[in-house]
Amino acid sequence: MKVSHKIFYPPKGFLFAGISAGIKKVPKNDLGLIVSEKVCEAAGVFTSNLFLAAPVLISKQRIKSGKAKAILVNSGNANAGLGNDGIVWAKKTTRALAKELKIKESLVLAASTGVIGEPFPSEKICAALPDLIKSLNPFGYQEFTRAIMTTDTKEKISYRSFRVRGKEIRILGISKGAGMIQPKMATMLGFIITDAKVKSKWLKQLLSETVPDTFNRISIDGDTSTNDSLFLLAGGASRVALAPDQPGWTRFRGALAQVCLELATMMVADGEGVSRYFYVQVKGAKTKPDAEAVSRRIANSPLVKTAISASDPNWGRIIAAAGNAGVKFNPDRVSVSLISDDRKEKVEIFKLGARSKTYRGLELEKKASQILGRSGFQILVELDRGRESFEMITCDFTEEYVRINASYRS
Amino acid sequence: MKVSHKIFYPPKGFLFAGISAGIKKVPKNDLGLIVSEKVCEAAGVFTSNLFLAAPVLISKQRIKSGKAKAILVNSGNANAGLGNDGIVWAKKTTRALAKELKIKESLVLAASTGVIGEPFPSEKICAALPDLIKSLNPFGYQEFTRAIMTTDTKEKISYRSFRVRGKEIRILGISKGAGMIQPKMATMLGFIITDAKVKSKWLKQLLSETVPDTFNRISIDGDTSTNDSLFLLAGGASRVALAPDQPGWTRFRGALAQVCLELATMMVADGEGVSRYFYVQVKGAKTKPDAEAVSRRIANSPLVKTAISASDPNWGRIIAAAGNAGVKFNPDRVSVSLISDDRKEKVEIFKLGARSKTYRGLELEKKASQILGRSGFQILVELDRGRESFEMITCDFTEEYVRINASYRS
Repeated sequence: MKVSHKIFYPPKGFLFAGISAGIKKVPKNDLGLIVSEKVCEAAGVFTSNLFLAAPVLISKQRIKSGKAKAILVNSGNANAGLGNDGIVWAKKTTRALAKELKIKESLVLAASTGVIGEPFPSEKICAALPDLIKSLNPFGYQEFTRAIMTTDTKEKISYRSFRVRGKEIRILGISKGAGMIQPKMATMLGFIITDAKVKSKWLKQLLSETVPDTFNRISIDGDTSTNDSLFLLAGGASRVALAPDQPGWTRFRGALAQVCLELATMMVADGEGVSRYFYVQVKGAKTKPDAEAVSRRIANSPLVKTAISASDPNWGRIIAAAGNAGVKFNPDRVSVSLISDDRKEKVEIFKLGARSKTYRGLELEKKASQILGRSGFQILVELDRGRESFEMITCDFTEEYVRINASYRS
Repeated sequence: MKVSHKIFYPPKGFLFAGISAGIKKVPKNDLGLIVSEKVCEAAGVFTSNLFLAAPVLISKQRIKSGKAKAILVNSGNANAGLGNDGIVWAKKTTRALAKELKIKESLVLAASTGVIGEPFPSEKICAALPDLIKSLNPFGYQEFTRAIMTTDTKEKISYRSFRVRGKEIRILGISKGAGMIQPKMATMLGFIITDAKVKSKWLKQLLSETVPDTFNRISIDGDTSTNDSLFLLAGGASRVALAPDQPGWTRFRGALAQVCLELATMMVADGEGVSRYFYVQVKGAKTKPDAEAVSRRIANSPLVKTAISASDPNWGRIIAAAGNAGVKFNPDRVSVSLISDDRKEKVEIFKLGARSKTYRGLELEKKASQILGRSGFQILVELDRGRESFEMITCDFTEEYVRINASYRS
């Protein structure tokens, strides 16, 4: 995976800011803002949890119009589990922002991340808005990124640009998400900004095509938050209009998918207490959902994840997890291999339902263990029952994870 | 929960033994044997994992006859994931035992627990059989119990006796299981021995009635092993014949349920790295499966479990887990309370979809935190959507769990 933290030119027509509004206990950035110079096209995807945080309820409603002009985001408080109070508090902040920016409130989206159930500090946020707006600038995306981080240890920014008909199109992706990353919609906030000119209905379609193969195949601990939100905004300042089946569309879709996958991988790699991330590919399933179920079960197994944290090629736990996925297959046809991060080395540890005959001796055990020592390796499970496959991106499970999550509120 | 470790009189007609056969790396008991003086009635329940360990395959087949005379058990090696070799190795040991005991091989059941995928030490086991048989005695159940322990820190023995028509009936339950305890059939070995005279078809029925409310509602880490086995043997030496709808049946069934529940609770309490166990009760669900799904989701959530390990009344994680159970309910009708281990204190932390208005101030937070500090407390979730309920028994999730599971093979 290439991760670029260099300075690049963000999509035209957008301003970013991030400041400290005193929401977090320590003086770190905790309030962020993205503003589009013009009303832009917008689409979003939100958590599948039944409990929806107040900003999710509000953004879900407002984004139906397909239009937006600003996104107000905070960390340090999730504004979740507060009932109607939470909605009142959230609207107070988006209303104040709309007033300051002299725009319609319905064009302001919102997102929050942090502790659930604490009263939302709307006063602090409203008081900080003038400073926040003052610091808006086209290169403010790094300050913005810092403002949405919680237990993240790294900023997660992904960027692509390409030319269509001689004109440059830029895509900037920013996300946060470290704990609670999960099957289905991972717990995260994600913001993808482009200066391409794309109608909101196409943005919506793009998200539904792209998310299943990117954000939805990562897993850290199997829990989903109440606040997951992914926004895609297209401002149009590049003056390149894009639509399906037209020139540039495939490249745009490809670049967007790369940004999403890069952000998703960064999120797994920076999961709470994660020492390495890896891939779980299941091949030869009868159906795609079967492949996905087996892959998810292995990727979410605490026993597999703790073994990996110790570089232990414990295939017993891998097959035990596979056998628990609720998917029918013949155990005697199953094989498991470990493939190195550079895809050059392959050790078959389990073959046709039994410990592989070739997997004997300290040397191979050592090699297998070495493969597990580096982020990016792959566990390949072949079911030999059909032609469908699925690959999850997941991570190991360390004592540090427990330490972080036991002390999160203290 | 009353846990009795005192010496009591085991069911008549059974002999027990446990010795070290050199299977474990350290010289601890690792080979156990139960022998019934006469051929006894037998029933069993086995793992739902698709990958079945060799002893499970063998025992499942043999117990169909409803008869048994001996159970040979080892720890230190699971005899799983070895394909046909594993079956050959397992049969070698049961054949040798049958020969020594001069009984039919088909009356020997087997169970194994330990590392998956290592060649099964059948030679060592066969060599140790004479010593094992020599040490058989009616009070050998403690040595037997030690022989089946892996990462267990405590012996798990439960006992009940009662009189029917003036004659005493005894039930002795022994189990092991610490890691990999899971939804559905928990990973465990369990042996329930009685001197009542009960036909195997009734034993089978009793297990199917009792297991769902005992062993199947415990959870430690959400994984299921390849080796789960629960055996119920009735020897008949009490000379009291029992059958459904006849005198003593209800008491027998009740005592059996108590033994199963006590063993199940001991297993959770002694889960790997567990500092406390607790109950998750879901009430007011529309259907029983709904109640169970929500309860399981909370009981298995790593984020809930890590919060509990720090005595953190983090109801945000509880409701987030509930909202992820794939069960439909109205979040605005949900309430959550914490109830102390003695059931005398109750703190309502979440009411009708929001942080409870009465749950304010340091004093109540402190009280909630105190409740979480003692094993046996209950998280009560009311969905207000129907009349069905379900209660799981689960445990917290500590750094110690990760430490144990990362280093299990080294």
